[in-house]
Amino acid sequence: MTTLQSSIGPLVAELTDLLGERVSTTEAVRDHHSRGELHFGAAPPDVVAFPASTDEVSRIAALCTKHRVPMIPFGAGTSLEGHVSAVQGGVSIDLTGLNRILRLSAEDLDVTVEAGVTRQQLNDHLKTTGLTFFLDPGADATVGGMIATGASGTTAVRYGTIRENVLGLTVVLADGRVIRTGGRARKSSAGYDLTRLMIGSEGTLGIVTEATLRLQALPDAVTSAVASFETLEGAVDTVIAAIQLGIPVARCELVDEVAVEGLNRANNLGLEPAPMVFFEFHGPTERAVEEQAELVKELADDRGGRGFQWASSLEERNRLWRARHEAAYATLTLAPGKKGWATDVCVPISRLAECIRESRADIDASTLLGPIVGHIGDGNFHCLYLYDPDDSAEVDEARRLNDRLVNRALAMGGTCTGEHGIGVGKIASLEKEHGDAIPVMRAVKQALDPEGLLNPGKIFR
Amino acid sequence: MTTLQSSIGPLVAELTDLLGERVSTTEAVRDHHSRGELHFGAAPPDVVAFPASTDEVSRIAALCTKHRVPMIPFGAGTSLEGHVSAVQGGVSIDLTGLNRILRLSAEDLDVTVEAGVTRQQLNDHLKTTGLTFFLDPGADATVGGMIATGASGTTAVRYGTIRENVLGLTVVLADGRVIRTGGRARKSSAGYDLTRLMIGSEGTLGIVTEATLRLQALPDAVTSAVASFETLEGAVDTVIAAIQLGIPVARCELVDEVAVEGLNRANNLGLEPAPMVFFEFHGPTERAVEEQAELVKELADDRGGRGFQWASSLEERNRLWRARHEAAYATLTLAPGKKGWATDVCVPISRLAECIRESRADIDASTLLGPIVGHIGDGNFHCLYLYDPDDSAEVDEARRLNDRLVNRALAMGGTCTGEHGIGVGKIASLEKEHGDAIPVMRAVKQALDPEGLLNPGKIFR
Repeated sequence: MTTLQSSIGPLVAELTDLLGERVSTTEAVRDHHSRGELHFGAAPPDVVAFPASTDEVSRIAALCTKHRVPMIPFGAGTSLEGHVSAVQGGVSIDLTGLNRILRLSAEDLDVTVEAGVTRQQLNDHLKTTGLTFFLDPGADATVGGMIATGASGTTAVRYGTIRENVLGLTVVLADGRVIRTGGRARKSSAGYDLTRLMIGSEGTLGIVTEATLRLQALPDAVTSAVASFETLEGAVDTVIAAIQLGIPVARCELVDEVAVEGLNRANNLGLEPAPMVFFEFHGPTERAVEEQAELVKELADDRGGRGFQWASSLEERNRLWRARHEAAYATLTLAPGKKGWATDVCVPISRLAECIRESRADIDASTLLGPIVGHIGDGNFHCLYLYDPDDSAEVDEARRLNDRLVNRALAMGGTCTGEHGIGVGKIASLEKEHGDAIPVMRAVKQALDPEGLLNPGKIFR
Repeated sequence: MTTLQSSIGPLVAELTDLLGERVSTTEAVRDHHSRGELHFGAAPPDVVAFPASTDEVSRIAALCTKHRVPMIPFGAGTSLEGHVSAVQGGVSIDLTGLNRILRLSAEDLDVTVEAGVTRQQLNDHLKTTGLTFFLDPGADATVGGMIATGASGTTAVRYGTIRENVLGLTVVLADGRVIRTGGRARKSSAGYDLTRLMIGSEGTLGIVTEATLRLQALPDAVTSAVASFETLEGAVDTVIAAIQLGIPVARCELVDEVAVEGLNRANNLGLEPAPMVFFEFHGPTERAVEEQAELVKELADDRGGRGFQWASSLEERNRLWRARHEAAYATLTLAPGKKGWATDVCVPISRLAECIRESRADIDASTLLGPIVGHIGDGNFHCLYLYDPDDSAEVDEARRLNDRLVNRALAMGGTCTGEHGIGVGKIASLEKEHGDAIPVMRAVKQALDPEGLLNPGKIFR
């Protein structure tokens, strides 16, 4: 791992030759590229480059390799584990200029986009096609960013994570070579699965510049429902039973009693402070989604579910889901002025209620508030520790809670991160989880990036 | 790539110390391990080892590395591209002794098995649980074999390929180290996706000894249907329309007019010689599957579908699907004494009808017969060239047809192999498809198997 700061001057000159005004060393721009949504660990790059094509990214990479300077891909800046901070300096490669939708095939339900296209931009583009890209990690992340972190979110329980929704990639390697992985066929056994090797590699193996994505038919019928439960176990058991029955629930999101309080505070909703589950059902006909909702209502009724409410009107549905989506931010109103430290362990669903209950008790016994929301069908949940980043006691308390949460999840056969990735924040957790496999990961890194210039300091120490 | 045949004697002695009678150098056993179902390229190993645990596989690998002798994992021997032939000699590691089901969690819909467990064995074990493992590549392959080739089959259109159904692996590396990839969480962003790097790597990066698999709820209601179509386009367009409507078709299999003739010949079915599609629908209730079948019937009626027949009784359904499953073998009756050369290109579904039509014309203009069946919802189809392996003119003709088929699929944005893998048979095709990415695949291979001892001669030249 090498940073030759003395190289930056000549490199900036060569980048300027290539990109003209699309190179910046101003403090404001460097500061903007120093961090994602993470609350600590900001580190500005020496320079920010704004390419507009795969070819320009390739040339930038070749220059960085020539000067042995780190390169850090940057998208919407919404990552949560410090993936984009320039911990060893170098060039932040801002990919938001690669924002073209290159090809769309409605018949094949696939689309090829540049890495800087955001989720919202893509779905706006698809509006008249009857198709959609269902991945929903909350933030309006770029496609490249979602690929880098292995993102998922509320719809993964039915439509899969980003891993299941990418058919192929264009990737710029450290030395500027450009490769294409996968393709447009819906499945392939042609050689190593470099597509999935790149997904979740956080910019440490290559820079994704284009992706071919699977799309889904926008369902003709959609209904939402929400239920409160006497107990957390009742909520989780309802979802387990629904999955075991093969009911294709499209979304099922837990909001725990503390998070419900946050929703009430922020939106004056007057909800009962008890664990709630927000459901969404998709199907080809109204009859099909009603049937799904009825079946889940029966399961919920048998498991302490109360006040199962349907919302089949678009307006009502949007109101419900807006509340869920804003839950993370809404809960910040519980402790004005504090920041939220978002965690994302994922455990086998049979251990989920136990894991959430123990985590709840741990937070309640601490000095911090911590609402919990979760993608309950996947066993993935978020504790959001509300803390003051300038108060070292609170930082320590949040860190202690997070460490205990990760240990708890690992002891239950889970993972330290279901969807946010490792970045700089979870390096020690990855070592606990995959200690025996890390030498293999390192060997792959060494093979693809022998100089260690691609997003150094992430995933590994 | 090194084979030191002189090392075989001492290696066999050390293997015998380890495994006792579970080591064989007899010609019959070596011959059995010289090939899969492939019709050419058989190459016997020097010795066959029959381990019964991950630990024994680890020790065998360490011995092979010590003596610098190739190791070739072997399962059910049903692969189709020569993956298991010992082209550089060495030790065939027969994993069928690793046949235990290690853990089952009905609540989590997951199971951990050893690599030698077969698909049928697993589903027999699951019989009373209400769960199933839906992957259906036709042959009763082992889990390890399906992972090695990136297998899929008739149910991938709804339930995904093996790639989407593996949560974690235990892998023995070339030098005998044992690593665990993934885990039991339904999703994870913890470091590089070594699980999917191993899937489809054909035993060239490591030897999979255990796998944790996702299971599916056995649907409460199932119905099958079959329809003949005036044209191939009508059949394909019906399936495209169904997918665009979001109808969750569980299986949709094309049998072309030549393959229908084979079915008639073998089973005296008296079917009309026209393209047929076999459908299967899964749902939580009878009403749900009837609705799916009705919707598809309407789509088929509008697209030249004739005689849409339902089969909701188990017996009737089994009869239909047995016919489809036996299609490949049944078609051999069209040319008694010949062998079948099975291909498996996969193209974007919008090009599927065109690709099949051109391939049909190409076969019809050749000296060979070649029925076509296909997993139409994925764009994946099999031409089965019926030829005499001892007749060099017929071998050349089949090879020429296959080359043209691969070129056609690649020109349409497809892949040379949807589910069979590269082995020795498709090395040149892989170079055509992924020439720019092969150096990266080679770098990964070099990083994980620097001596080139893991299944040499496969995937790469």
